[in-house]
Amino acid sequence: MARSKTAAVDGSNATDFLHLSIADIRRGDRCESLTTQLRQAIIDGRLATGARLPASRVLADELGVSRGVVTEAYRRLGESGQVAARGRGGTVVVATPAPDKATPEKAMSDDVMGPTPPLLDAIFQRPFGNLSFEELRAVPARIDLSPGVPDLAAFPRGAWLRTERRVLDALLPADFGYAPAAGTAAFRLAVSRWLARNRGVRVDPEQVIAVAGVAQALALLAKVLRAEGSHLVAVEDPGSLGVREQLRANGIDAIGVAVDDKGVRVDELEHSSARVVHLTPAHQFPMGVVLDGDRRRDLAQWAVDNDGLVIEDDYDAEHRYDRPPVPALRSMLPDHVCYASSVSKLLAPALRIGWLVVPARMHDAVVAAKRDSDLGNAGLPQLTLAALMESGDLERHLRLLRQRHRRRRDAMVDALREHIPTATVHGAAAGLHLTITLNEPTDDVELARLALSQGVKTQPLSMHRMSPGQPGLVLGYAARSPGEIGEGIAIIAQALNRTGAGQAIRNLAGTPARRAGTPPGAPTRALSTSTPPRAR
Amino acid sequence: MARSKTAAVDGSNATDFLHLSIADIRRGDRCESLTTQLRQAIIDGRLATGARLPASRVLADELGVSRGVVTEAYRRLGESGQVAARGRGGTVVVATPAPDKATPEKAMSDDVMGPTPPLLDAIFQRPFGNLSFEELRAVPARIDLSPGVPDLAAFPRGAWLRTERRVLDALLPADFGYAPAAGTAAFRLAVSRWLARNRGVRVDPEQVIAVAGVAQALALLAKVLRAEGSHLVAVEDPGSLGVREQLRANGIDAIGVAVDDKGVRVDELEHSSARVVHLTPAHQFPMGVVLDGDRRRDLAQWAVDNDGLVIEDDYDAEHRYDRPPVPALRSMLPDHVCYASSVSKLLAPALRIGWLVVPARMHDAVVAAKRDSDLGNAGLPQLTLAALMESGDLERHLRLLRQRHRRRRDAMVDALREHIPTATVHGAAAGLHLTITLNEPTDDVELARLALSQGVKTQPLSMHRMSPGQPGLVLGYAARSPGEIGEGIAIIAQALNRTGAGQAIRNLAGTPARRAGTPPGAPTRALSTSTPPRAR
Repeated sequence: MARSKTAAVDGSNATDFLHLSIADIRRGDRCESLTTQLRQAIIDGRLATGARLPASRVLADELGVSRGVVTEAYRRLGESGQVAARGRGGTVVVATPAPDKATPEKAMSDDVMGPTPPLLDAIFQRPFGNLSFEELRAVPARIDLSPGVPDLAAFPRGAWLRTERRVLDALLPADFGYAPAAGTAAFRLAVSRWLARNRGVRVDPEQVIAVAGVAQALALLAKVLRAEGSHLVAVEDPGSLGVREQLRANGIDAIGVAVDDKGVRVDELEHSSARVVHLTPAHQFPMGVVLDGDRRRDLAQWAVDNDGLVIEDDYDAEHRYDRPPVPALRSMLPDHVCYASSVSKLLAPALRIGWLVVPARMHDAVVAAKRDSDLGNAGLPQLTLAALMESGDLERHLRLLRQRHRRRRDAMVDALREHIPTATVHGAAAGLHLTITLNEPTDDVELARLALSQGVKTQPLSMHRMSPGQPGLVLGYAARSPGEIGEGIAIIAQALNRTGAGQAIRNLAGTPARRAGTPPGAPTRALSTSTPPRAR
Repeated sequence: MARSKTAAVDGSNATDFLHLSIADIRRGDRCESLTTQLRQAIIDGRLATGARLPASRVLADELGVSRGVVTEAYRRLGESGQVAARGRGGTVVVATPAPDKATPEKAMSDDVMGPTPPLLDAIFQRPFGNLSFEELRAVPARIDLSPGVPDLAAFPRGAWLRTERRVLDALLPADFGYAPAAGTAAFRLAVSRWLARNRGVRVDPEQVIAVAGVAQALALLAKVLRAEGSHLVAVEDPGSLGVREQLRANGIDAIGVAVDDKGVRVDELEHSSARVVHLTPAHQFPMGVVLDGDRRRDLAQWAVDNDGLVIEDDYDAEHRYDRPPVPALRSMLPDHVCYASSVSKLLAPALRIGWLVVPARMHDAVVAAKRDSDLGNAGLPQLTLAALMESGDLERHLRLLRQRHRRRRDAMVDALREHIPTATVHGAAAGLHLTITLNEPTDDVELARLALSQGVKTQPLSMHRMSPGQPGLVLGYAARSPGEIGEGIAIIAQALNRTGAGQAIRNLAGTPARRAGTPPGAPTRALSTSTPPRAR
């Protein structure tokens, strides 16, 4: 029997825990050696601020040295300001070295006016890629009008914690183990009911696959498509840069199909060689168009005739204000639609929870891809979300968000009318963002760069275009207050003034051109009152 | 300006929310039509049990019908038992159809003796694959001695919730947005300190990459290796089936290198064509050997001479009982080691949180692979775990687990000595499992199948072998009580009796052979007393 009995060193000993070298301490200057080793432990983080040192008697016993050696070492560390005696609380670490570099989170919370020109130049270099979003997010901005997030301040912290507590209380030990790769049964059931109630999609719970968001859904589908020999997906143009970069990063070429005011041009799709198309039919990103009835019929015909596959990215369909719900394509074409959505626009992107429903023939391959990617989503957040869906808490949250987002949408439309009256607003009836196009020749990347240098973050429309088209901006309103939105739009108008295209506004308003040298951060109120109220 | 003003249908209306078709209800038999539509909404889950129907007056207004139509529809649904009036609580749904199929979780909680023979045959068919683990997990078992999980009942629910509440309270709205793909700064800092304290690894926080567990770390590394033209990784034999299946599923061929009592045979590695090797040096899976000093030096030489890469899978190194900590290879070979570990063995696999540290030259490519896979781990659990690491709560939990696991390890070793004295025990000084080898010819897959048919789940050693070798079982002890462990080992001994190899025990004990027809579930006490106490 190979059971080892050399149990001299116990796993819970302080020396062992701190990786102290007993041999080194026992020879030579014991006190100096111990002090040095403890100091190193504090510097490299084995002993964090607030950590309590072992009682001197205990450590002396473990090391086989006299207690005086340990108390003297503690005294020396105290003199150098690294530890302090806390009476009956023992001796604790009071100072650890700061980490080498400033953390990104820290940089983001700085309330600075705007980032430095070199940083901006690095971000706004073309072509944009998958990294652009993360780089752009990392830039501090006083008013962040990036699209794609709901009102994050509204995250229902209380309901989430209450629900998680209830879920945790009811969990069996086995529920903390590895879950099925496709997701827990409770999550899949809750999502199937959510889809029935909110998206008119009827699906067996067994068909729901838990994923870490739509981005992962695309990565999994790309893997399955590649294995089937498909290396080409048609995407909307303009369309989400993030989507096509995600496909490309996962081995799929994206070709653009034009979008007009009825949605994607199915006739163009018919003439392409693509057998798979990625669409945002309920609220096209970024233009906000709804795929209209005729196009839906044409698309269904295309799918049936070509054994085609539609990846329906239903990213923000629960958010709508001035129009009835748009049924999901999945409900009419279950054998040809992969339906993907997530909580990123309902609750928070940081949760990384989404769901994917695919045609039955693809189901096992997609679950295998999920298993091979990460063995499946985390269990506890799935169960917490499922409980929030089943209790009605998530729908209540959605109703609250709708009211709040609608006010913010209205504030943005009003501010645009006031400050940039020549812009055309697209897609404001639903979603979390709207898009403006500018009818004058404008370099929208330069416009976004200028606005960001003044503390307002947006995305240039051309970033999402594959072929040339009107310049514009994609503007998220959901996460900002009406006041911030008004101020942000005013600063954008000012930036527009400083590019060539501002001329149009000035002509329309009949006011003298604003000096290009207006100092950064000049009061926006002055700008507001100098433009005509309600130009149209 | 394209702002739509056709705001007739409000997003928060009940009709809209329930996807009722107003047009259909307004024509024909209104009451019948409404009843049918509501019934359908209950059947397909738009109205769940406990959901409250809209007040009849409100719904009548929205539909443009008289209130009597709605109250009559509610009455009919009440007659069919689907809704009930609850006084001031309104009318609520009381019965929804059960989901079509029994959920896997439900099946697992059934306290049955054992699964049916056809199910077992399906699982224990060879070769085993990546799906085998999920299939095996789904089989109900009274005593689950599968390796790979800590004591899940000890999950610190209270500390987790308290910490999450504190983290949530302190979060800025932006923290609910998309996080950096490599992980939040707080998480990376906490992990770098954890590694310094517990694994002797010094690493800059910037080098830590948050992943969804070691399985995802392998998938990401496989992608980066493939892009570099590497399609071959050497793995330990015997070694983790899950690891090599994970590599294969991600496009990497695995070749086996023998393991002996000093760890992996570096001389065999030198003679292979592999430039990359996956190792479990601190506690080899499944044999539990520690990679010895000479082998470490040889491995370092191999890595330097061949520009080799070691994937160090440090899956359970924090758990050890009778021996000093084994330093991580990463600490001696930072330019040649990808270090991966997770909380799966510290807290729970269901959390899906792990960390990966790679040589500096690979860092950006691995982070890009993570971004392209899922945009990064969920933020909140990262921050909660970071806080548990920094507060010392996680180390306290680890100490508690060590004590508990050690008792369970002792119980298993004692039970093996009593019931299967001829077996050789491997790797019991650390980890969450031990492995026994059987010195008589035995079909260990048949043995595991028999044991499972009697309610005891284990993994046959041959499942983890690439080339032939001694039969055996891999036995997890961490998640079961000493009583269950004793009973489980007794049942395994009984199963062994029913295979050919049991003969050895009977000869040794000098007792007459037990009848092959011993009924399943016969009292194990009888078996215990019939074998000699303390055979060696």
